[in-house]
Amino acid sequence: MQNSPSPEELHAFDREHFLHPWHDMNAWRGYDNMLVEAAQGIYLYDETGRKFIDGPGGMWCVQIGYGQAEMAEAIAAQVLKMPYASPFTNVTQPGAILAKKLADFAPGDLNNVFFTTGGSTAVDTALRAMQFMNNSLGRPEKKMILAREKGYHGSTYLAASVSGKERDVTKFDMESRLVHFLPNVNPYLRPDEMSVAQWCDAKVQDLEEAIAQLGAENIGAFIAEPILSSGGVIVPPEGYHKRTFDICRAHDILYISDEVVTGFGRLGHWFSSQAVFDIEPDIITCAKGLTSGYLPLGACIISDRMMERMTHRGEVLFSNGYTYSGHPVSCAAALKNIEILERDNVLAHVRDIAPYFQERLARLTRYPIIGDARGAGLIGCIEARLSKDGSRLEDERKIGAMIDQACHDRGLIVRPLINMCVFSPPLVISRTQVNDLFDILGQAIETVCEKFDLTP
Amino acid sequence: MQNSPSPEELHAFDREHFLHPWHDMNAWRGYDNMLVEAAQGIYLYDETGRKFIDGPGGMWCVQIGYGQAEMAEAIAAQVLKMPYASPFTNVTQPGAILAKKLADFAPGDLNNVFFTTGGSTAVDTALRAMQFMNNSLGRPEKKMILAREKGYHGSTYLAASVSGKERDVTKFDMESRLVHFLPNVNPYLRPDEMSVAQWCDAKVQDLEEAIAQLGAENIGAFIAEPILSSGGVIVPPEGYHKRTFDICRAHDILYISDEVVTGFGRLGHWFSSQAVFDIEPDIITCAKGLTSGYLPLGACIISDRMMERMTHRGEVLFSNGYTYSGHPVSCAAALKNIEILERDNVLAHVRDIAPYFQERLARLTRYPIIGDARGAGLIGCIEARLSKDGSRLEDERKIGAMIDQACHDRGLIVRPLINMCVFSPPLVISRTQVNDLFDILGQAIETVCEKFDLTP
Ligand SMILES: Cc1ncc(COP(=O)(O)O)c(C=O)c1O
Ligand SMILES: Cc1ncc(COP(=O)(O)O)c(C=O)c1O
Repeated sequence: MQNSPSPEELHAFDREHFLHPWHDMNAWRGYDNMLVEAAQGIYLYDETGRKFIDGPGGMWCVQIGYGQAEMAEAIAAQVLKMPYASPFTNVTQPGAILAKKLADFAPGDLNNVFFTTGGSTAVDTALRAMQFMNNSLGRPEKKMILAREKGYHGSTYLAASVSGKERDVTKFDMESRLVHFLPNVNPYLRPDEMSVAQWCDAKVQDLEEAIAQLGAENIGAFIAEPILSSGGVIVPPEGYHKRTFDICRAHDILYISDEVVTGFGRLGHWFSSQAVFDIEPDIITCAKGLTSGYLPLGACIISDRMMERMTHRGEVLFSNGYTYSGHPVSCAAALKNIEILERDNVLAHVRDIAPYFQERLARLTRYPIIGDARGAGLIGCIEARLSKDGSRLEDERKIGAMIDQACHDRGLIVRPLINMCVFSPPLVISRTQVNDLFDILGQAIETVCEKFDLTP
Repeated sequence: MQNSPSPEELHAFDREHFLHPWHDMNAWRGYDNMLVEAAQGIYLYDETGRKFIDGPGGMWCVQIGYGQAEMAEAIAAQVLKMPYASPFTNVTQPGAILAKKLADFAPGDLNNVFFTTGGSTAVDTALRAMQFMNNSLGRPEKKMILAREKGYHGSTYLAASVSGKERDVTKFDMESRLVHFLPNVNPYLRPDEMSVAQWCDAKVQDLEEAIAQLGAENIGAFIAEPILSSGGVIVPPEGYHKRTFDICRAHDILYISDEVVTGFGRLGHWFSSQAVFDIEPDIITCAKGLTSGYLPLGACIISDRMMERMTHRGEVLFSNGYTYSGHPVSCAAALKNIEILERDNVLAHVRDIAPYFQERLARLTRYPIIGDARGAGLIGCIEARLSKDGSRLEDERKIGAMIDQACHDRGLIVRPLINMCVFSPPLVISRTQVNDLFDILGQAIETVCEKFDLTP
């Protein structure tokens, strides 16, 4: 059976047996997804050999692009030498070196790396560490988590519970008893008469009011993506990060910066918390770009300050951990990924090309169906709007899929999210390729405009 | 820095920056773990080149042993061809084929594979799927989870919450509102006058009483390892699995069989639920042996019967999933692992050699400090007992570590668990190597006996 089934067979196996994330349960066994057969540079190839620009960069993760032969070599070498050792009891070369590297990259005294298998488990560990700390400090009531509407932090029960409610209808439970949500911070939603600075004041006030309402003595942590990515690339207003961080610090509320998307060069720096937003969180979580998605790995990086409040307080175990915490092969992949990013000056390239990327992105508002075009670094999002009063919501909700289809027809993958499309290409994208991406996107939007009888 | 730091430097990096699972928080930055430098067959090598039999087989996972060149080749080939594609929207060859394989291996109508990044995330998904199903069926109160003392199901908040209380002292929170624990099923704990059959009756009755007490209408699932492995290799009495399964089915309580340890040949079969214990669960979770630990991967396999109760009930998304769900490189590793297990007849080898392994294990009770020696397939556990009345508990608790140290001195790694040592070597272990393992273990136990002035 492993002798190369045909594409038709593969599609059938997948339909019958592979339950996909965010599966449409009304279309169980009735859907058909794109088969990705091969990948090279910033391109994906389907089973017919058709080539596509990978707009989403895997899923915000393939920083160095596909087909990096050195990655295959480094991974194979580690597999041959030592593919696994239990992180519960052993030290490994790739694990130790990577932990040191991450501590070097992370700001301030964020020196303690707890490895996991991805972003969700990193977030789950971060939140559990907050509970551990406050139990250790004898203040078990200080546990409420502040999170934000439209935030996305993953899919374990706990990580899903701090992810802001989706417009998606689901049947999963959330542990709402542990979480309080702050309203959407998207400046695009501010009333016409409000300036961005006023919006920022209002959003900071949302946090202050929540603290006043719940009591700082009941709040353990604030968890925030520097940019709310899966929720639609929401860039909070300038100054928001620093002001909310200072408020948390003043109330002894841990600040967890979820850099699963924004880490590893997406904004031109290893981490964005300090380099871009001038904050020094208590915990940073990361995954995705850490290995450029080549292998599963995540990390929860904890400050010394926080560790000191959890340790040397009697015989207590940090009874949390995964069989694949710090998997040596995943760590070897991360190290090679970092080596490539450093050697090829990829972070500098991002800082160099991002302004042009953002300029081309901003120009898309010239199309009448595009209400907002926003982003940062090498992340972009276009949001459709047909009317200001929300009267054409039904049509708007179709536009993401329509633009996606029109892009697909022209050799570009984007990620549709209801009335939005998001993209975050491999960081090694060249200026010519940025032009290709936005040229196709422009043509696709134009086609969709025509379907609505609108022309730029 | 990546140019080969010395072992001393690696230990320092690790101590300063790598927060290990189950870390002793009283010894933060003060511990020293074994550095595993290389591995081959059933052996690990430290930085001095010293060779050790890997008793725990990684951590219940390295079925095919270390250094399999074909694994390195298959992994490197997939990395080069296509290292990542989003499982949210794409089909990949390794993912589709592996899903089909797992559906073939799993009993009955367990045909729907949701891939995750390890065991914890598979369990987390299984429990969330139960919540999803009962919400879909309009019975949101049917959610309580029955679990068992000494069970271990992982480290996400939810998976940890269904793991039976440890003797370990911790400061983590558990979501006890969702879980009810059944008492320890270990036959070794039964009163002297009770037969194993009577013990089985009593343990089945524990389940019945819990259902009567909580009400079947409030209970969503029963989660059980076929053998409670991390809790000390507890083998429930014969007949227990089938009887508890039938009771769950009669009350429409989902039976989740956590085969993270018992899957992939550990008991001589792909899965043990049906082949060994004659039950056909609603969900099987697996990880570890699925890739022989070479790369992170887990799976939650759901029955058609259960899927039918979750699908085609309106526009609902299965809004759960990981960036690394069904990672193509991990899936390629799993497929090669399965190919090796099949081609080399490893499962038949386990069925062949396990009786001898268990016989050598059972003989260890000849040592006066060993109260029980138990296991199944290629899993073993020795439990120390110095007195029947528990009066020497303090000494007993040291024995696991003492035997571990004595084994280490002789070139064997075991996994100490308080007063126990557990082991689950690579499945490719030969008869000669089984003899080596038990010869060393016997000598080590003898040394420890001498320290207590006891001789066999
Ligand atoms: C900000 C953020 N945090 C956490 C996660 C969860 O990561 P994973 O899917 O690897 O579990 C994601 C995934 O998209 C994310 O964007
Ligand atoms: C039975 C069982 N379930 C789940 C897990 C958790 O798996 P992981 O550590 O891969 O998350 C384990 C790990 O030891 C296990 O033994």
